[in-house]
Amino acid sequence: MGRLGRVSHVRIAIDAFGTDARPKPDVEGSWLAAREFPEDEFVLVGDLAVVEAELSQYDVLANLRVVHAPYDVKMTASAVDALKEGDESSLHIGLRLVESGSADAFVTMGNTGATHSIAMLKTLGRIHGIKRPAISALYPINGRVVAFLDIGANTDCKPDWLVQFGELGSIYMKTALQMEAPKVALMSIGEEQAKGNAAVQAAYDLLSTSSLDFVGNIEPKDLLTSEVNVVIMDGFVGNLFLKTFESAMSYVTNVIRSEIRAGLVSSVGGLLIAPAIGRVRARLDPLEIGGAPLLGVDGIVIIGHGRSNARTVRNAVQQARQAVSGGTLQRLRAYFNGKEHHGTHP
Amino acid sequence: MGRLGRVSHVRIAIDAFGTDARPKPDVEGSWLAAREFPEDEFVLVGDLAVVEAELSQYDVLANLRVVHAPYDVKMTASAVDALKEGDESSLHIGLRLVESGSADAFVTMGNTGATHSIAMLKTLGRIHGIKRPAISALYPINGRVVAFLDIGANTDCKPDWLVQFGELGSIYMKTALQMEAPKVALMSIGEEQAKGNAAVQAAYDLLSTSSLDFVGNIEPKDLLTSEVNVVIMDGFVGNLFLKTFESAMSYVTNVIRSEIRAGLVSSVGGLLIAPAIGRVRARLDPLEIGGAPLLGVDGIVIIGHGRSNARTVRNAVQQARQAVSGGTLQRLRAYFNGKEHHGTHP
Repeated sequence: MGRLGRVSHVRIAIDAFGTDARPKPDVEGSWLAAREFPEDEFVLVGDLAVVEAELSQYDVLANLRVVHAPYDVKMTASAVDALKEGDESSLHIGLRLVESGSADAFVTMGNTGATHSIAMLKTLGRIHGIKRPAISALYPINGRVVAFLDIGANTDCKPDWLVQFGELGSIYMKTALQMEAPKVALMSIGEEQAKGNAAVQAAYDLLSTSSLDFVGNIEPKDLLTSEVNVVIMDGFVGNLFLKTFESAMSYVTNVIRSEIRAGLVSSVGGLLIAPAIGRVRARLDPLEIGGAPLLGVDGIVIIGHGRSNARTVRNAVQQARQAVSGGTLQRLRAYFNGKEHHGTHP
Repeated sequence: MGRLGRVSHVRIAIDAFGTDARPKPDVEGSWLAAREFPEDEFVLVGDLAVVEAELSQYDVLANLRVVHAPYDVKMTASAVDALKEGDESSLHIGLRLVESGSADAFVTMGNTGATHSIAMLKTLGRIHGIKRPAISALYPINGRVVAFLDIGANTDCKPDWLVQFGELGSIYMKTALQMEAPKVALMSIGEEQAKGNAAVQAAYDLLSTSSLDFVGNIEPKDLLTSEVNVVIMDGFVGNLFLKTFESAMSYVTNVIRSEIRAGLVSSVGGLLIAPAIGRVRARLDPLEIGGAPLLGVDGIVIIGHGRSNARTVRNAVQQARQAVSGGTLQRLRAYFNGKEHHGTHP
């Protein structure tokens, strides 16, 4: 597969203090990945004594070691606070391993805003040519994976930033997830070109003449049935979109559960429907995918959910492995550097 | 209740060609309202022959008559097309009845964009002092009514427009729905003042020093449990929010139904759960309220859903009656006119 193709072995740094139940799921998930991929190298970043104690419960693996980080960034910390806290957090040290070339990727289930800020301002920085990196979310929808970006890093976006989000998402889907021709859409309030706010309308024009496989605007109601693979949104809209969808899902399932408890549905009906409710949530559960890339920073960074369990952490590590193996970073660099000099295809 | 209080009788014009199943639900709903409120006057606006034929199925009511409008605006027509179509549509003629003072309010289940455009540009215009009228939605949430605005009229909003949306919503809740102190919130991606896009952050500052009962930012997950009565959003975000929520509700209920059909839930379980699914949807069904006001135009205009039935049309007419009786328009005029000269409370 050439210079940018599959690499012989992958070195991944993992935040030992990411999940809400830190460090247990983080450590166990890393151990699961290390056992599953013996040719790759894994580094847990966190308080040495605590992580070693946690690791002592599992068989020793030669390809899993620990790098000490004196403290961890709390999930509730603001990005500004995280930046002020200095350079000794597991986020900082993990990202620095990537910056220095000691690791090919960093994986964390921790604070998204802090990860974004530390990656951007203190360690990796942007890929040359990138206006604004984007936080993405990957959702399994009807058997396919859909990338949504930006979901919170950039609340006011210029049209050309939105176009770059499409390019970033498209290249990720091609390289890390081996999709041949990812379809890219703009989230909007109608299918017609004239629908949307000013930035969306201007981005539509730019996307129409881009080399992306741009399929136009998409509305929320069409997401579940369309063939779209990358959905572009500004970070304010994207964050609200995901939170709204999640809230509505919780609302419906909670009402059904409460009706079961209140006896409005017989307990027999409740027993029969409970697995169906579970499957509804599982069908759209981002934890299945494990984590999603922070795209546009100059390194592979995968951010997962704080409520991840060990299996989810393992899945996030697998996302990172795929991005490294697929040459995602090299392709992004070549595309965005090259674009300044001569047009290239994403 | 004084000059701005309850009026002796209310005159309401109703679009006979609003619903998807036009004119049957529109005519029947108007007839139901006319029978229920014999002291008020109701005018159906639409093709005279068609509406008279439809009305002939019901008992004659002295307080329900028809005003001829040669054609109707299709639900799929763009606002621009609707404006081009001339002045003889049921929307145009109905709104003109309000403009001329022949009716106190106009109710339609038809094309929202066209209604907004015709009201703004061809008939009523804005209330003096209003920057941008807003389309609202009223949802019943846990037994209280919540107004969301704007939900589509203004896709890019300046901070002071957002503040006016809060004032418009607050005055509507006070006058039409008799709420004493409506709580107003800004939809955003975090509770803290610093969360949100630039317009939301600037609006937060303005709202904090306003005379509104401003309770800060609200996130989607808190909507269902909070005490908020008015939620401010720009029209792009608002439209996406409602469509996303609706899509998620449909998705969950459809998946559960499909699992029942596929036998993954036994048919016994399916029978037991079906009423619960129905109740989930009913709990958040805007059709219960019937319609929501177009706020900021110089007249009372209530817009309902195209999928309304006769009972919903009747409910929308009742919204209009309450706004007229409650002196909503007079209060809006006094507030926004007065504000230019001296501060008043909404």
